[in-house]
Amino acid sequence: MREIGLDELKHLARGAAILGTGGGGDPYIGRLVAEQALREYGPVLAAELHEVPDDALVAGIGMIGAPTVMIEKLPAGEEAVTAFLTLQREIGRPITHVLPIEVGGMNSLAPFPVAASLGLPVLDADCMGRAFPMVQMVVCTLDGVLARPLAIADEKGNSIVLDVRDNHWAERLARSATIGMGCTALMSSFPMSGKQARDITIPGTLTLASRLGRLVEEVRRRHVDPCQAIAEFLGGRVLFTGKVVDVVRANDPGFAKGEAWLEGFAAHDGANCRLAFQNEHLVASCDGKVVASVPDLICVLDATGEPVPAERLRYGQRVTVVGAPCHPRWRTPEGLALVGPSAFGYSHAYTPLGA
Amino acid sequence: MREIGLDELKHLARGAAILGTGGGGDPYIGRLVAEQALREYGPVLAAELHEVPDDALVAGIGMIGAPTVMIEKLPAGEEAVTAFLTLQREIGRPITHVLPIEVGGMNSLAPFPVAASLGLPVLDADCMGRAFPMVQMVVCTLDGVLARPLAIADEKGNSIVLDVRDNHWAERLARSATIGMGCTALMSSFPMSGKQARDITIPGTLTLASRLGRLVEEVRRRHVDPCQAIAEFLGGRVLFTGKVVDVVRANDPGFAKGEAWLEGFAAHDGANCRLAFQNEHLVASCDGKVVASVPDLICVLDATGEPVPAERLRYGQRVTVVGAPCHPRWRTPEGLALVGPSAFGYSHAYTPLGA
Repeated sequence: MREIGLDELKHLARGAAILGTGGGGDPYIGRLVAEQALREYGPVLAAELHEVPDDALVAGIGMIGAPTVMIEKLPAGEEAVTAFLTLQREIGRPITHVLPIEVGGMNSLAPFPVAASLGLPVLDADCMGRAFPMVQMVVCTLDGVLARPLAIADEKGNSIVLDVRDNHWAERLARSATIGMGCTALMSSFPMSGKQARDITIPGTLTLASRLGRLVEEVRRRHVDPCQAIAEFLGGRVLFTGKVVDVVRANDPGFAKGEAWLEGFAAHDGANCRLAFQNEHLVASCDGKVVASVPDLICVLDATGEPVPAERLRYGQRVTVVGAPCHPRWRTPEGLALVGPSAFGYSHAYTPLGA
Repeated sequence: MREIGLDELKHLARGAAILGTGGGGDPYIGRLVAEQALREYGPVLAAELHEVPDDALVAGIGMIGAPTVMIEKLPAGEEAVTAFLTLQREIGRPITHVLPIEVGGMNSLAPFPVAASLGLPVLDADCMGRAFPMVQMVVCTLDGVLARPLAIADEKGNSIVLDVRDNHWAERLARSATIGMGCTALMSSFPMSGKQARDITIPGTLTLASRLGRLVEEVRRRHVDPCQAIAEFLGGRVLFTGKVVDVVRANDPGFAKGEAWLEGFAAHDGANCRLAFQNEHLVASCDGKVVASVPDLICVLDATGEPVPAERLRYGQRVTVVGAPCHPRWRTPEGLALVGPSAFGYSHAYTPLGA
């Protein structure tokens, strides 16, 4: 196990926001909440999967709702702890390890207040290897681990426990409950044994995010193009560079859904690029042709390599769009059925990036 | 305690549907679910409030959602039991008495499957003395008894537990959860002691509903106008008789909301009557003038005295509108603040019927 302290948090938040592909929550807010917890309780231990005993009880933590809303309806800071303790009470046994449900600027850091205040280790892993907008879009669903029970808490002190048939119903009911709470809340679910966590979850994603976040600072110092460096680090490529000329978005229903239109600076960039997002970027189309699509990663960066969350996209921004391959698990037929284009209502076929 | 058997159920369902003022659920569906439980487990004991020990643990049962939807999305029959047992597990102590949250064709009978299958008595009382559409619209709110915890179950086997700040948040979160479940579900909440139930709830409303339902049959045999007899029984009066000429309704958001327009048969009936409903009838206006308004009862009946639920109103029906005084508790300033015209967004002043 290694310690994660205040210094690492800013790298982790940035890297996780890049891997969050536009979603996964605002890295600045995520960092503030985690920093406060670390200042109060000290550093958090991150455990690698091989360090987790078979009979450990692991539970996931993550934000649910529309990140657009969380920019203004700030978390109180205690929601994740409340959701976690509600889940623990419902299960009736002490939870021993905290797991980020997804990678994201907020979501990789959401377990830290729980881990710090309760003295539990965070698992260096997650259930997506990126961020996806819906509860059922986790490797757990592929392996039969249920979001059951599922606890949700808001910043006003309300909490909810769901006991649902399957992970799709978990999404449906957790979403409508979250809408009632004002479109953002913190959830805790996917209780699993240490053995299950080892067999199922995607390893090392906290460390990966930290390394990626640190890389951005290093290449800036060396005057290397950070966007190019990020693309190489992720085994992907730069898809487009241009200016945001329009953004349309709505909180519907309980997601930040919308589209952004970019115009290229130079002929070789292509004339235009359209990004469709639902919390996360789902599809990037250049000059009318899909160039990257879920489940692959579509990362929007400013010229300094700083990730631009989808909810912060606005007219006039200069951005670079990087595409990168997703975890291999998502490229299987069952993976694509769960998180591929058709899962979001698109009819285009999935062409793996870098293949 | 007295036994309520199959014979009484049909009177109870009819009387409760009249007192349900257009809402409270369909009496036919309510009766079928209760009859099935009584056939399987035998009759249910109804306890009067003075028979309940101080330290009894009482919990309410009721439907939540849009009654329009329940006509087609029928209950599976087990929802109330699931919600009740979920609540009991959450509280951690055996619940000893089951209480109808409101009076209604479905809702007065919703506790019967729970009482019959678990061998518990039903309290001859409720928390409204009629039906209202929202969770917080109960005498409990006036007396500080919280909907906490609150359990909801649907016909698909999903269940939810809410732990909320106050009864208004219970409504908000239970409503959005119910929308996720498909707009109808069964809930169990308002845990209270026997002493609280005696001090707070409205006594004798099961017996009242049975007597009213039985009265309708009796007056039919005596060729007395049933609508007039119902109005007299309730201390109210016939407000309008006419034909339904239009109905507009929507399930929005999680309620059966709408308006019905009636045209009079004869000059003395007035030219027209407009009914505004949100599950229950809220306001009756004749020739542009409010003639009855929440919290007073507005009961729509056919010529045989059979109650017509708001979700069953349709073009061409011949109906009689009866207005009757509500429980005195609702006519106090705090009662009116909770369930009076302004609580539904109306600006008209409340004029008590029969005053």
